[in-house]
Amino acid sequence: MRPIQDIIKEKPWVGWLLFFSTVVIVFFIGLFASSIVERRSEALTLQTVKPLPEWEPRNEVWGENYPREYETYRKTLDTNFASKYAGSVFRDYLEDYPELVIMWAGYGFAKEYNQARGHANAIKDIREILRTGGKDDRPMPSTCWTCKSTDVPRVMAEEGVAEFYKVNWYDRGHQIVNPIGCQDCHDPKTMNLRITRPALIEAFERQGKKISDFSHNEMRLLVCAQCHVEYYFKGEGNYLTFPWDKGFSADDMEEYFDEINFSDWTHALSKAPMLKAQHPDYELFMTGTHAEKDVSCADCHMPYKTEGGVKFTDHHIQSPLNNVENSCFVCHRDNTDKMIQMVYTRQDKIMELRGLLEESLAAAHIEAKTAWDNGASDKEMEKALQLIRHSQWRWDWVAAANGAGFHSPNEALRVLGTGIQKAEQARKELALVLVKHGVSYPIAMPDVSTKAKAQAYIGLDMEALEADKEKLLKNTVPKWDSLARERQGTLIDY
Amino acid sequence: MRPIQDIIKEKPWVGWLLFFSTVVIVFFIGLFASSIVERRSEALTLQTVKPLPEWEPRNEVWGENYPREYETYRKTLDTNFASKYAGSVFRDYLEDYPELVIMWAGYGFAKEYNQARGHANAIKDIREILRTGGKDDRPMPSTCWTCKSTDVPRVMAEEGVAEFYKVNWYDRGHQIVNPIGCQDCHDPKTMNLRITRPALIEAFERQGKKISDFSHNEMRLLVCAQCHVEYYFKGEGNYLTFPWDKGFSADDMEEYFDEINFSDWTHALSKAPMLKAQHPDYELFMTGTHAEKDVSCADCHMPYKTEGGVKFTDHHIQSPLNNVENSCFVCHRDNTDKMIQMVYTRQDKIMELRGLLEESLAAAHIEAKTAWDNGASDKEMEKALQLIRHSQWRWDWVAAANGAGFHSPNEALRVLGTGIQKAEQARKELALVLVKHGVSYPIAMPDVSTKAKAQAYIGLDMEALEADKEKLLKNTVPKWDSLARERQGTLIDY
Repeated sequence: MRPIQDIIKEKPWVGWLLFFSTVVIVFFIGLFASSIVERRSEALTLQTVKPLPEWEPRNEVWGENYPREYETYRKTLDTNFASKYAGSVFRDYLEDYPELVIMWAGYGFAKEYNQARGHANAIKDIREILRTGGKDDRPMPSTCWTCKSTDVPRVMAEEGVAEFYKVNWYDRGHQIVNPIGCQDCHDPKTMNLRITRPALIEAFERQGKKISDFSHNEMRLLVCAQCHVEYYFKGEGNYLTFPWDKGFSADDMEEYFDEINFSDWTHALSKAPMLKAQHPDYELFMTGTHAEKDVSCADCHMPYKTEGGVKFTDHHIQSPLNNVENSCFVCHRDNTDKMIQMVYTRQDKIMELRGLLEESLAAAHIEAKTAWDNGASDKEMEKALQLIRHSQWRWDWVAAANGAGFHSPNEALRVLGTGIQKAEQARKELALVLVKHGVSYPIAMPDVSTKAKAQAYIGLDMEALEADKEKLLKNTVPKWDSLARERQGTLIDY
Repeated sequence: MRPIQDIIKEKPWVGWLLFFSTVVIVFFIGLFASSIVERRSEALTLQTVKPLPEWEPRNEVWGENYPREYETYRKTLDTNFASKYAGSVFRDYLEDYPELVIMWAGYGFAKEYNQARGHANAIKDIREILRTGGKDDRPMPSTCWTCKSTDVPRVMAEEGVAEFYKVNWYDRGHQIVNPIGCQDCHDPKTMNLRITRPALIEAFERQGKKISDFSHNEMRLLVCAQCHVEYYFKGEGNYLTFPWDKGFSADDMEEYFDEINFSDWTHALSKAPMLKAQHPDYELFMTGTHAEKDVSCADCHMPYKTEGGVKFTDHHIQSPLNNVENSCFVCHRDNTDKMIQMVYTRQDKIMELRGLLEESLAAAHIEAKTAWDNGASDKEMEKALQLIRHSQWRWDWVAAANGAGFHSPNEALRVLGTGIQKAEQARKELALVLVKHGVSYPIAMPDVSTKAKAQAYIGLDMEALEADKEKLLKNTVPKWDSLARERQGTLIDY
């Protein structure tokens, strides 16, 4: 090929052609770049950021400043259940697994336990659930509100943290009306992530760690870990406390609870001193492969989204299975169906062991009741009851966590495996006690094959509970709302 | 900036500079490429490929044609134990876990069971292990040779497959002298992968699948799956058979064995009809995350290696933990220590559940013996013995597989979890039988805390076994070798 300068020397128009082509191409690239820049600046100039007070609980007020984030947040109202174990409709877990009613006899969860829903439903759900009681029966402390509302930090700031927990759940109904939202995680001045719940800060402080020492990426875990953790209500004041002082594992926390001789309730059938686990999502997640790779909650549950020229964090917090392309595919290359199938393969194994353990535990409680009924002594029952306590704790540590164990399948299976051993060991002890007291083994089992049958067996008067709840929702809740409306000006019915 | 042609028009030397720079750069690129091509062609021209017969068992003869592959293969002699659970020295598993002696009472594995070593040790190891017996005691059939030597396809071709299995292990000692090697997996004419062991072909044929339908990548699994699978010795002719007809999982194979009422042996203590699992590596691997991504055995255990200008498959088959940089790092980006730590994290959980199950099973066998000793009837024991059979099968399905469960941690943990349940259920049944026969529970346990104590407890005369083995190794084996040397001309002492 001849050198280009020779060609141009001979035919000058070739040089001019090259020159003008370049000019035209660069012009269009400029136009394109300008179009992007213009859209972004429009987004910025149209957005007039209104200053927010330190504790503004109303998500819709924050939403005026951050319309995209608010709009996506509002989508958490409509929980779209893509997961196999969630199904396509809202699940009543007590209908699905009637063993749970037996396992929780004597405790609120036997009354009602449903699939978790999106954050914006938090106030509606906590008011409606039978566990929080009605107008007359008021079984729960104010501590139950802690993770349900943006009003909590405000009331804590006004009244003090210990004081917040001390009163009855019912008594704060008028103060707490806005569902989980913006200010639970954000500083209103800088929009930086911030921890608003003292229990997390206190748990780390007991380990000599300050929140300010954590990186931004760790904060993307910790704002979620304010609530998505195991906790308990400590002492008479029901002070919200994380049982982390010996470590994060099911085994460590079990040791912690044993040492302080804590139990959430005494089981109505077996009389075992029980522990209730509360979604230890953070603790379980931290043992898994995604945590090993420094993935944070938001990476999968709040991936980036683009609308027009604007890229922002999708605040429609949901199962990544609803949004595989934007969540999983940032790191994984595969097709959507296969990706989802791989999650199910892991969850299937966990659900299999969970199911085995649920059956064993329900049977163990009933066998223990039969032993008591036939004159077993405290001393004879001691070993079995301790095994039941530990076994159900380990079951619950996995079962209460969101994601059907997917946050760390190996750890979930390990913990379930140890739980299965303890449940069967308990049943061996009980079999020996029963035989000793002249009861032939296996005992005849009651029919507790549906939620209704199981609830009747453990002596729950569901009609009374529902009637009392109805009174609360019809008579009291409207008063709470009107007091709130007076206080804060507006109140959205999410 | 001015157009280049204007500059060149004014200063012609600029054009020449550009021209000669290009020439010089292209010249050096050419030199570099030539250097690569030259080295590869040297490798090819120096290599005079000698035609091999259809069944050449001597690896060193193949090695003359393929020196790099052979040289790396020979490194399997020196098994470098990098894994945490392998330790840095050769492990005697019965010393490490004396429970195994109890669990295998009445079966060869209670005599001796060591950590697996590299392929080139296969002949040496099978001759030396107490399980294959001595000069006088000859407990095993010829089927045991099947996966140990390149002589096997030759003898099968000469004598017939069923005939191969039929005789005693001892009687083929002179025929089978070359360790696992080249022709077990390669066609000597094309060097393509080929299946030389009939059991795999037959198992797929029963499922309507032909080996020729599998892809090359699948063949990279299947040449290993000739041996690294679960199998059993069927019928009086000890015909090597894979129990795959109902599926690959521990549960499917258990059902298969139950249906044909098969057991490997009757337990010497518990009298349970036992199953012995044989390293179901392929089956376990296929349930794991690496199989989901179409990774084959060779990708991790035989990654590519470069020497000089030649890239070839490393035939030093070993733990990828010895070779993280060349195996794991092809897909994973991390540092070596963290990579290894992530493997250990998974293996730790599996070893924890395995350990729990081993203790339970050993205790169950001893409790069952005590029940028999105290007059228990077949009917009373039936349920417990079936549970022991299933539990130990599930334990072994994980424990016998190589890699401490890492080939599929989730499935390993699931299977162990179900095994734990069955072991504890067996112990409940046994406790009831014991109490019924007037034995107080828990029973007093014998001291079986070391290999020697456990072997004495189950009644093994280790001195006699060792003396008989010594006779075999001193008197018989040299004769086997000299007959082999006569037959094949040369014999390397690996």
